[in-house]
Amino acid sequence: MHTVKVLAFDVFGTVVDWHTSVARAVQAVCPGVDGNAFALAWRDGYKPAMQRVMSGELGWTLIDDLHRMILVDVLRAFNVTHLSDEQIGHLNKVWHRLTPWPDTVAGLTRLKARFTICTLSNGNLGLLADMAKFAGLPWDCILSAEVFRKYKPDPATYLGVARVFDVQPSQVMLVAAHQDDLAGARACGLRTAYIERPLEYGPTRAKDVSDNGLNDVHAKDLVELATLLGA
Amino acid sequence: MHTVKVLAFDVFGTVVDWHTSVARAVQAVCPGVDGNAFALAWRDGYKPAMQRVMSGELGWTLIDDLHRMILVDVLRAFNVTHLSDEQIGHLNKVWHRLTPWPDTVAGLTRLKARFTICTLSNGNLGLLADMAKFAGLPWDCILSAEVFRKYKPDPATYLGVARVFDVQPSQVMLVAAHQDDLAGARACGLRTAYIERPLEYGPTRAKDVSDNGLNDVHAKDLVELATLLGA
Repeated sequence: MHTVKVLAFDVFGTVVDWHTSVARAVQAVCPGVDGNAFALAWRDGYKPAMQRVMSGELGWTLIDDLHRMILVDVLRAFNVTHLSDEQIGHLNKVWHRLTPWPDTVAGLTRLKARFTICTLSNGNLGLLADMAKFAGLPWDCILSAEVFRKYKPDPATYLGVARVFDVQPSQVMLVAAHQDDLAGARACGLRTAYIERPLEYGPTRAKDVSDNGLNDVHAKDLVELATLLGA
Repeated sequence: MHTVKVLAFDVFGTVVDWHTSVARAVQAVCPGVDGNAFALAWRDGYKPAMQRVMSGELGWTLIDDLHRMILVDVLRAFNVTHLSDEQIGHLNKVWHRLTPWPDTVAGLTRLKARFTICTLSNGNLGLLADMAKFAGLPWDCILSAEVFRKYKPDPATYLGVARVFDVQPSQVMLVAAHQDDLAGARACGLRTAYIERPLEYGPTRAKDVSDNGLNDVHAKDLVELATLLGA
């Protein structure tokens, strides 16, 4: 682990609390709607939508555009009919304005002093840059599926980070709150760190955050990760 | 100009002083060599090398690799034969360790408070990220020819910035110390700001930094640019 030079971070759920941010934004414009259920439904549409791109059914599509396609369906499912196109566009960009977890900025700031820290998210570059500015996330570099034109868990994304920084895959550590993402990285030879985030899906959907023994590091949050990595 | 949201910066020469940094690094490892002439020769190889990629003679090649190809030729031309492969590799990465102009960090910091600030450089992502960390450049996002797989002045690069941030080309301003780069941006509908940098090529090669009247802004340096843009 002393050879790790680059920490690549999953973003949604790992770095920022999408559930609370999205639920609040929905309730602000749709007062009668269950923001918690709406946020979960929106997020649940994410993997199937990406799968349509990965299978070739859809051409390459930015997450902003996938989010909008899913949002239109979810609004219909929740019988929300009063929003204008502009309001739907603004609500769609709530993913650019997600709030970091309380430990995020302090943890990243410590880690940045010792490692190169970058995103590795399926979110598009503009989304991630807006979010970094909004939330004060001190990335050294923003990397995205958009750069590699493949979504995680495609190996091109994990290996792409190593290639961008001209290091071996074992010199990159993926930091994520999702075991499937970490498994994809591990299969490419990256180091992995699991971050718990038990409230990722809000108060009604439990998340198993137990240590599966497969990652190099298991940490409660990013401040603990900094401590465990000596940063 | 009140509608500009994104400032995209050329980097080599505009933001950092490549000439001084490269000349010093060369003289440190090759004491008998004229660092000034070596730096100019290395940089002079840059456009012809990119041209070989743009013409299709070479496949897509990162600037790090083009820099190395040129460096090998320049070392031969200057009769430098004592460097190991590892020393050549380290010297090649001097482009990751360029020093900012004295006004750069202060100017960017002011501009960042009002605009989204990003790079738009032919330099590769890893080079630009290393440089930002080394020099303390507070980019909101690092964009590169590597993202668009075209070098400036290909329109795909200028229009790519607008696409990434989901804005109109006229809401992006290219900031550069080179009129040809600015002309390319202008042809795509971007706003443009010229920065003088009279010492870009060192003490022996003069640079015409006069106002050609074609750019929206003409500034001595990035602090003056911040003032002119009300940042």
